[in-house]
Amino acid sequence: MKNRIGIIGGGQLGRMLAFAAKRMGFYVCILDPVPGSPAGQVSDRQIIAGYNDEEAIVKLAKQSDYLTFEVENANGQFFDRLVKKVSCKINPSGRSWRLFQDKLEQKLLLEKGHIPQPEFMPVNSLQDLKVAIKKLKLPLFLKARFDAYDGRGNVLIKKEKDIDWAWKRLKDKKLYAEEFIPFVKELAIMIGRGSRGEVVPYPVVETAQRNNICHFVLAPAQISPLAKKRATNVATLTLKLLEGAGVFGIEMFYTKNDLVLINEIAPRVHNSGHFTIEACATSQFEQHIRAITGMPLGKPDMIVPAAVMVNILGERTGEAKVFGLEKLLALPYTSVHIYGKRETRIERKMGHITVIGESLPEILKRAQLARKYITI
Amino acid sequence: MKNRIGIIGGGQLGRMLAFAAKRMGFYVCILDPVPGSPAGQVSDRQIIAGYNDEEAIVKLAKQSDYLTFEVENANGQFFDRLVKKVSCKINPSGRSWRLFQDKLEQKLLLEKGHIPQPEFMPVNSLQDLKVAIKKLKLPLFLKARFDAYDGRGNVLIKKEKDIDWAWKRLKDKKLYAEEFIPFVKELAIMIGRGSRGEVVPYPVVETAQRNNICHFVLAPAQISPLAKKRATNVATLTLKLLEGAGVFGIEMFYTKNDLVLINEIAPRVHNSGHFTIEACATSQFEQHIRAITGMPLGKPDMIVPAAVMVNILGERTGEAKVFGLEKLLALPYTSVHIYGKRETRIERKMGHITVIGESLPEILKRAQLARKYITI
Repeated sequence: MKNRIGIIGGGQLGRMLAFAAKRMGFYVCILDPVPGSPAGQVSDRQIIAGYNDEEAIVKLAKQSDYLTFEVENANGQFFDRLVKKVSCKINPSGRSWRLFQDKLEQKLLLEKGHIPQPEFMPVNSLQDLKVAIKKLKLPLFLKARFDAYDGRGNVLIKKEKDIDWAWKRLKDKKLYAEEFIPFVKELAIMIGRGSRGEVVPYPVVETAQRNNICHFVLAPAQISPLAKKRATNVATLTLKLLEGAGVFGIEMFYTKNDLVLINEIAPRVHNSGHFTIEACATSQFEQHIRAITGMPLGKPDMIVPAAVMVNILGERTGEAKVFGLEKLLALPYTSVHIYGKRETRIERKMGHITVIGESLPEILKRAQLARKYITI
Repeated sequence: MKNRIGIIGGGQLGRMLAFAAKRMGFYVCILDPVPGSPAGQVSDRQIIAGYNDEEAIVKLAKQSDYLTFEVENANGQFFDRLVKKVSCKINPSGRSWRLFQDKLEQKLLLEKGHIPQPEFMPVNSLQDLKVAIKKLKLPLFLKARFDAYDGRGNVLIKKEKDIDWAWKRLKDKKLYAEEFIPFVKELAIMIGRGSRGEVVPYPVVETAQRNNICHFVLAPAQISPLAKKRATNVATLTLKLLEGAGVFGIEMFYTKNDLVLINEIAPRVHNSGHFTIEACATSQFEQHIRAITGMPLGKPDMIVPAAVMVNILGERTGEAKVFGLEKLLALPYTSVHIYGKRETRIERKMGHITVIGESLPEILKRAQLARKYITI
């Protein structure tokens, strides 16, 4: 049996992938520049090297049967070449990475696939931006095509007078403009694709963001059955446009009139899918491992009526220390995940909490309480 | 926060304890003689040394805040001395280990606590054995007081003519005789005790054994509410006789007339509690980590209607290799745990499968199928 998995990136996603892979009996090697990384702590081996250290990646690929990623960005061209030189399976593929690197390319593809999304226009000059504002109206997002996630590289232009400031701030990057959607809720679906092309969507969830970092996740989403169907359709159709095996995160806007528009695609397991560990028959991490190793996908349905996930973000800078764990664990049906990062930083993802139960309002309250109790 | 856990023993129980501890953010060091042991693979560190290497244990204790065990046997006297020399908390305690080492001592304690159990008598001579047979009748168990588990050191004397053979086989050990109970079912309860003395029993399960190794576990047990109450009482009363924080496994006989008798106590997480990972709000492994680190215990109740656990035992001798994983994972609601042991042996515990679902008969069938598909 081929059983060696290499993971590029040793943060919390790599760690939870490693938990799933180890449980299923795989050998796991992590590539990460930080010794004793969150994922390295729970894996057979860690290669200490940067995410883009091509020599180290070749080394990892040569001693792996399956190669996958926890990072949001990878050099697509490099992986296109690599896959021809090694026998290990690489997911997502180089082509996927090239696509995910360029948000404008993504939007053009979604347009081709008739997936509902906010209007957008390429912006190559201040003149282009002004045309976009005329067509798409204010407020308007000016966004970087490359290296933009968790809100980095995005500016919301609210008024005419912000235009120059926004332009100055981003003009050195390749840009596009995007219609601002006054959404009612943000939704997300984790969706897996197996190596034989079978597609398995998880239940639709609501995500509540703060400072562009996913903060609360409510499962299942409190929206109409029609909206759920639309969201699941958007995710399924989107996956048809992409290639490769693995789990993808599809983030969406839910607007009045029960409409669903796609916002972003994550080419991997995602923060909005952490609830699946406690609440679903198969966690997103196990699903990803099943997918990339050519195994059949697992059932995605919830085994509890409701779940709330809340991130534990750093609130200071310095050595990580957990305070309040005892108080948190006194709350019923409350699980805690602490990622084992050595250093804490303001807004850094240090852990998360999942509460399961009968009804969302009740467990949301408990999740808020749990979050208040703990600090890392 | 004190966050360093040392575990003596690096097999599958240590591995699943490590998964739980790492998820909660603890630093985990394993002591095991085999490099890259199942638990060592998923822990921060492994000290390569024998389970009874006192020098290595002192070293582990000195760099741990909490020390615990996955082995069935430990030198109680040594840990009695150790606990006075180091600041780390040790569970189970030396006194518990002294008790668990001597099955006859255990039975005398249970008798004192009025816990229903099979009749027994100490056996120091062939004469004693003959007296026991007269009093307790045939068939009768002749059992070793020390180093006996998973059926080792036990002989069932069925007929008069077996007496000499049984005596010859065990006479070099300290022995006792035990009434044979023609049980209808075997039951088990995992039960946790926190550092403040709170006691939290899991649901009663049925265990079906083959060759004295726990093979199938059915949760919840299909017995009357009265019998469930009796079993839970037996477990709770038994825990009152023991000391220390942690999870204990209580194995019982269920007889006609709805009676429950205690059979054995495991001073740690146990094979019959593996179903808790998928089926309960808190797994036995997380519960044990909560208990030994002084945290409040978690809810033990099942979050699914039914679960079946089946062991994957080795069927040959040689390098471990997994066959049939793909077929197994095509079954719905079926999780697999492979322990990462390098060598397989006949009847060696190599992994286990858990199936969850609505009703036991349906998922038992699926668990049998899953077991048939896989071999390691």
